[in-house]
Amino acid sequence: MTGPAIVPVIMCGGAGTRLWPLSVGEAPKPFHAFNADVSLFQDTVRRVTPQDEVDFLPPLVICGEDHRPVVEAQLAELGVVPSAIILEPCGRNTAPVAAVAAQVVADRFPGAQILLLAADHQIADAAGFRRAVARGAAVADERIVTFGVTPSGPETGYGYIQRGAPLAEGVDAVIRYVEKPDLVTAEGYLAAGDYVWNAGIFLFSPPVFLAELRASRPDIASGALAAIPGGDGQTLYLDAAAFAACPADSIDYAVMEKTQLAAVAPCDIGWADVGSWSEVWRLGRHDDAMNVTRGATVLIDTQGSLVWSEGPTVATIGVKDLIVVATAAGVLVMPKGRAQDVKAVVAALGKAS
Amino acid sequence: MTGPAIVPVIMCGGAGTRLWPLSVGEAPKPFHAFNADVSLFQDTVRRVTPQDEVDFLPPLVICGEDHRPVVEAQLAELGVVPSAIILEPCGRNTAPVAAVAAQVVADRFPGAQILLLAADHQIADAAGFRRAVARGAAVADERIVTFGVTPSGPETGYGYIQRGAPLAEGVDAVIRYVEKPDLVTAEGYLAAGDYVWNAGIFLFSPPVFLAELRASRPDIASGALAAIPGGDGQTLYLDAAAFAACPADSIDYAVMEKTQLAAVAPCDIGWADVGSWSEVWRLGRHDDAMNVTRGATVLIDTQGSLVWSEGPTVATIGVKDLIVVATAAGVLVMPKGRAQDVKAVVAALGKAS
Repeated sequence: MTGPAIVPVIMCGGAGTRLWPLSVGEAPKPFHAFNADVSLFQDTVRRVTPQDEVDFLPPLVICGEDHRPVVEAQLAELGVVPSAIILEPCGRNTAPVAAVAAQVVADRFPGAQILLLAADHQIADAAGFRRAVARGAAVADERIVTFGVTPSGPETGYGYIQRGAPLAEGVDAVIRYVEKPDLVTAEGYLAAGDYVWNAGIFLFSPPVFLAELRASRPDIASGALAAIPGGDGQTLYLDAAAFAACPADSIDYAVMEKTQLAAVAPCDIGWADVGSWSEVWRLGRHDDAMNVTRGATVLIDTQGSLVWSEGPTVATIGVKDLIVVATAAGVLVMPKGRAQDVKAVVAALGKAS
Repeated sequence: MTGPAIVPVIMCGGAGTRLWPLSVGEAPKPFHAFNADVSLFQDTVRRVTPQDEVDFLPPLVICGEDHRPVVEAQLAELGVVPSAIILEPCGRNTAPVAAVAAQVVADRFPGAQILLLAADHQIADAAGFRRAVARGAAVADERIVTFGVTPSGPETGYGYIQRGAPLAEGVDAVIRYVEKPDLVTAEGYLAAGDYVWNAGIFLFSPPVFLAELRASRPDIASGALAAIPGGDGQTLYLDAAAFAACPADSIDYAVMEKTQLAAVAPCDIGWADVGSWSEVWRLGRHDDAMNVTRGATVLIDTQGSLVWSEGPTVATIGVKDLIVVATAAGVLVMPKGRAQDVKAVVAALGKAS
């Protein structure tokens, strides 16, 4: 293996409410299997275990205390011992989490870089991803590298990055970040050819990241680091009062849109944020009638649908482009086009309870 | 009370497969509540308990051995002690069952009439029904009286009866029986005005019925009676070999279409055979968006649908004219227009197991 040591930092935040009734309570979205034999979290861990391409150290996992049991159980299933587990007392978005991780890695693994990943993304070409990480690592001691996915269509649900001049092999400067654009704008980006999707994955040297965060958002830098407990335990409980007092913001807003050190490593790796049931259908294995099924199902005159059972048989007759998901927590039925509206169901259930 | 004593004979046969996944195994259709606080079976029992209009004796219940526990439990809930429970070792349709019931009632309650009922019909106007029974009873020592429901539309799923000349107050002769007609024929019957739906309910004197059955189908008469065990117990196990050897046929074919003694008591009593989920929707209590719901449900942009939960929350978003039923046995999703196709699901599950 060549290049610097890299600590994968895996963030397990996010409730995944659009994936109700599968993503609930103590086992939200990252801890379920969609198109693999392991959960999204486990697939993420497996993607960054030591390989030929990159010198990965054991991962550092950041999750809520509620999810510690499922994190530990799923790591044990893989036989992976993490570098540490950091428990978030509350969600403060990604910038404070990245600051905490940067400080912990700087203290424990001097000289190592951080690869910051969400636990709930799917990447079809893991080796291709690792090759992109290796290219990024060549500049990540001086730059904050993000990963830019070749767009497969004018998606309006993702952020875009406009690529600039090459900085190194497979790494470009960043001209600008664009948050979720409208459809016409997204189509223009595709036609222009120099825009990529922001995969929300970052590679950086902890001291460089912390310096940039201190420059742009000193309140977040000091607030987050104040929550780090002393000692060198395997499990770090962030101080609840201190972390709650830290302003919440994303890395994109707090650092990437302001720093002069941003770089982007373009890659075409089958990346997807498994964000909704229509995405699960799109990413799934389709039968001849374009259906995707899971578990015990009986489909009669059914087309273009996702039929998902975690328990007893789910039967459909004469339906098209429908999502049907049944778990112990509930049953969801909607056209694929309404997959963004699941949050309304979760909100209604929250009000009812 | 006036008129002869009447023993209600309640037949609990029929698997109700079109009501999967509610009607399953040990608790098929008659034992579930649809639009009442009690099951269809219990509602049937309640309908024929002693009332002002008619001198009903305790009911005689006929069911499969599998369903004896639910029959006994549901009778106990009502505080009803039956005249007897007859256990069918297998289904032989209604004519053999009626023959057995006729012989048992003739032996145990000499002079009483039998009111033969299915356990899975809904009748909105129970008092109106009992008044029709009282009118029928006036002629039922000499006639075999059936009940003719005023059609509410050109239904093609029911049998029709053409009414003839009056025989007594509220009882007419029968010109002819017609099995399920096509739509044009059914519309003609409605226009003609002298056709009623065959409710499948019969009132007769046991010796008269047995004589007519012996005349038209002596094989069924002798076959069925050979299955009756000796003794006077509360629970009668029909002889399995003898009953299985009895030819299967309906009362309509075996007796009513052949006898000269048929009579019909027209009545307008809100009768329905709760045969399918679209019927359950039609008969249910509709909200402003024409939805019918049961149990824990969240409906968003949902119209004209039946959403039925026997357990965790069932949520629908953006659907119309859909049936969604979730029980511990399974989940069913289909447009209302496909409600007749549920048998295909049950068949597929049968093959799979």
